[in-house]
Amino acid sequence: MKIEAVDFFYLAMPQITTEADGSQDALLVRVVGGGEVGWGECEASPLVSLAAFVCPMSHGVCRPVGASVLGEQLDSPADIARISARVAYDSMDLLQAPHTFSGIEMALWDLLGKKMSEPVWHLLGYKRSFPKRAYASQLFGETPQETLERGRSARAAGFLAVKFGWGPIGKLDPHSDREQFRAAREGLGRDATLLVDAGQIWREDVEAAAARIPDLEAAEALWLEEPFAAGAYSAYAELAKRSAKVKLAGGEAAHNAAMAEHLMTYGNVGFIQIDCGRIGGIGPAKTVADRAAARGITFVNHTFTSHLALSASLQPFAGLENHRLCEFPFAPKPLATAITANHLSPNDAGEIAAPERPGLGMEIDLPGLQPYLQDVEISVNGQSLYRTPQLAL
Amino acid sequence: MKIEAVDFFYLAMPQITTEADGSQDALLVRVVGGGEVGWGECEASPLVSLAAFVCPMSHGVCRPVGASVLGEQLDSPADIARISARVAYDSMDLLQAPHTFSGIEMALWDLLGKKMSEPVWHLLGYKRSFPKRAYASQLFGETPQETLERGRSARAAGFLAVKFGWGPIGKLDPHSDREQFRAAREGLGRDATLLVDAGQIWREDVEAAAARIPDLEAAEALWLEEPFAAGAYSAYAELAKRSAKVKLAGGEAAHNAAMAEHLMTYGNVGFIQIDCGRIGGIGPAKTVADRAAARGITFVNHTFTSHLALSASLQPFAGLENHRLCEFPFAPKPLATAITANHLSPNDAGEIAAPERPGLGMEIDLPGLQPYLQDVEISVNGQSLYRTPQLAL
Repeated sequence: MKIEAVDFFYLAMPQITTEADGSQDALLVRVVGGGEVGWGECEASPLVSLAAFVCPMSHGVCRPVGASVLGEQLDSPADIARISARVAYDSMDLLQAPHTFSGIEMALWDLLGKKMSEPVWHLLGYKRSFPKRAYASQLFGETPQETLERGRSARAAGFLAVKFGWGPIGKLDPHSDREQFRAAREGLGRDATLLVDAGQIWREDVEAAAARIPDLEAAEALWLEEPFAAGAYSAYAELAKRSAKVKLAGGEAAHNAAMAEHLMTYGNVGFIQIDCGRIGGIGPAKTVADRAAARGITFVNHTFTSHLALSASLQPFAGLENHRLCEFPFAPKPLATAITANHLSPNDAGEIAAPERPGLGMEIDLPGLQPYLQDVEISVNGQSLYRTPQLAL
Repeated sequence: MKIEAVDFFYLAMPQITTEADGSQDALLVRVVGGGEVGWGECEASPLVSLAAFVCPMSHGVCRPVGASVLGEQLDSPADIARISARVAYDSMDLLQAPHTFSGIEMALWDLLGKKMSEPVWHLLGYKRSFPKRAYASQLFGETPQETLERGRSARAAGFLAVKFGWGPIGKLDPHSDREQFRAAREGLGRDATLLVDAGQIWREDVEAAAARIPDLEAAEALWLEEPFAAGAYSAYAELAKRSAKVKLAGGEAAHNAAMAEHLMTYGNVGFIQIDCGRIGGIGPAKTVADRAAARGITFVNHTFTSHLALSASLQPFAGLENHRLCEFPFAPKPLATAITANHLSPNDAGEIAAPERPGLGMEIDLPGLQPYLQDVEISVNGQSLYRTPQLAL
């Protein structure tokens, strides 16, 4: 089939706060071809990402993403890889391009899966989709008491693994952080998995991060996520040497497979976390999953938004039985819940799995999205390059 | 002084072609504060980069670049570093942010230099600005004969070093490339410096690149630039091992200092090439220059556009006497020439130096720009976020 149309929908909550909560807005992508419709989602700035699809060409390797996608042939996974390679080369000087293309690439897999009546993970070469232990991903409370209560409610909701991130961690002294780690563990009870996300707060300051390791060990945290800036590989490697029990995790910022590879090779992380909405979609995430598996590093999805994004991010490691943890957006904004009509709810064992249905297996709730739709117009020299399309086809 | 205004001007040639010629459009940045005006230039997609300045916030670490700049205090180089760090953190999930901020950061240095009546290189801590041998940077011809003639005209124009890039290299067989390298050397004569830029054509294919090394040696090329994708460090390192005489060069795609550091540490390049219009401005480029000098790697600017960008990219290594080569845009489009009223012309020895005048030392030619100015409008929900401002203050 031919890729006939690619449409972007910028959705947002009525109020956007400075919380590190990526579910406050969304950029949904619809791809149409061969009588089918595929959907994807960019985990990125919506306005800037859609501008990268429609912008005028600057030169031969700074072309708009749209130029590599519209009108292309799509009949097999190899076509998706070919289009990805074309975007990578023809838009190499357009920095935003991988964020824009990520949602498109997901939608191409969804479209292809629907056309071939196969789930995406099967198109990726996996024989089955193994269940993963869903970890409830949420922010630290402003106070230890609030964190403790958030831990309790995640347990009450049936989760056996919980991640706390951002909030006050690293902004006050190590003692204050210790109180937070303790409160998190107390709220969870001794039998649940505790994960901690520092949100890059120490940039490349190894000593500041190392000062927290004993307290993370005492709280029996499985990993410390993103202690440093995404590219601070030597800081990662140094901290990994100094933390025997608590492994390092990172990778969500990777906007191509090579960046994730570098964090594994040079940063010595124990867990590699990939956001399909940023790394260029499902294909490069699968490449990272294969490489991680080959070297004994555990692949984990990074997902903080909708269940469309969640299904997409489960696909690359659906068939890796021993990579058992899965990030689950526990308390997203209503917009993120509204995006899909169906949802991936954890079973009694606290597990979810990539759907068995064709494509990504998710149904978009068009009427439910209407209230969140942002009306965008971009024009250059009086010519309209983008105007928010109708949600109904 | 306070940063009172930041304005973006999208300029473009009437026709944009698929040549790898980045001088076909430009994004000029004007910063106003304390009764002075500073200018900078992003080497990036203009529409996407200005969108990243004005876009609505997505969440706490996906804020528009403007939020970290407007209204900030600017009295010293430390203020520029502080603002840079704020952009890096508050816009960490906005991929385009470093490209947007690069032009702003240059303009902040220009503004500060004018306010303090000092050239930027002096504010960076250098005692003097050493002359550099300007190399004429141009594209390979479509035929060896065309390349030969381009080499002759660069020599006739007084250049003692010439770089040829892109064009047919790597798109045909090694034999065709050999003919191109020979023609380049023949056009230059035996006494000039020859540099070759492959424009990432071999992605990560070490064998394909290695097949060209003997012919590059025979043509006495000083370096082979960007044989691979920007993040293909292990391919760089492998090729470096297999090329004794011809050193590798790269780094233009670095959008932060860490990326350049990685190419030096893991990729074993002999020359590190930094574009101040992409890496986040002059400050991070100076960091790279310091680190390169400390480990015996030669710093070189990457500049293919205006003389405003050229002056900016000379500043970070102006005081490094032994880093003597300097990229000089030899055949830019008329737009790039029109941006400044004054120009940095090579002297009789084929050398240029960063200006002694305050700031970046360049004068913007406002009336000359008017014909190239693009009229852009961006609105969200009926609210105008960007409209092309007047060139005249």
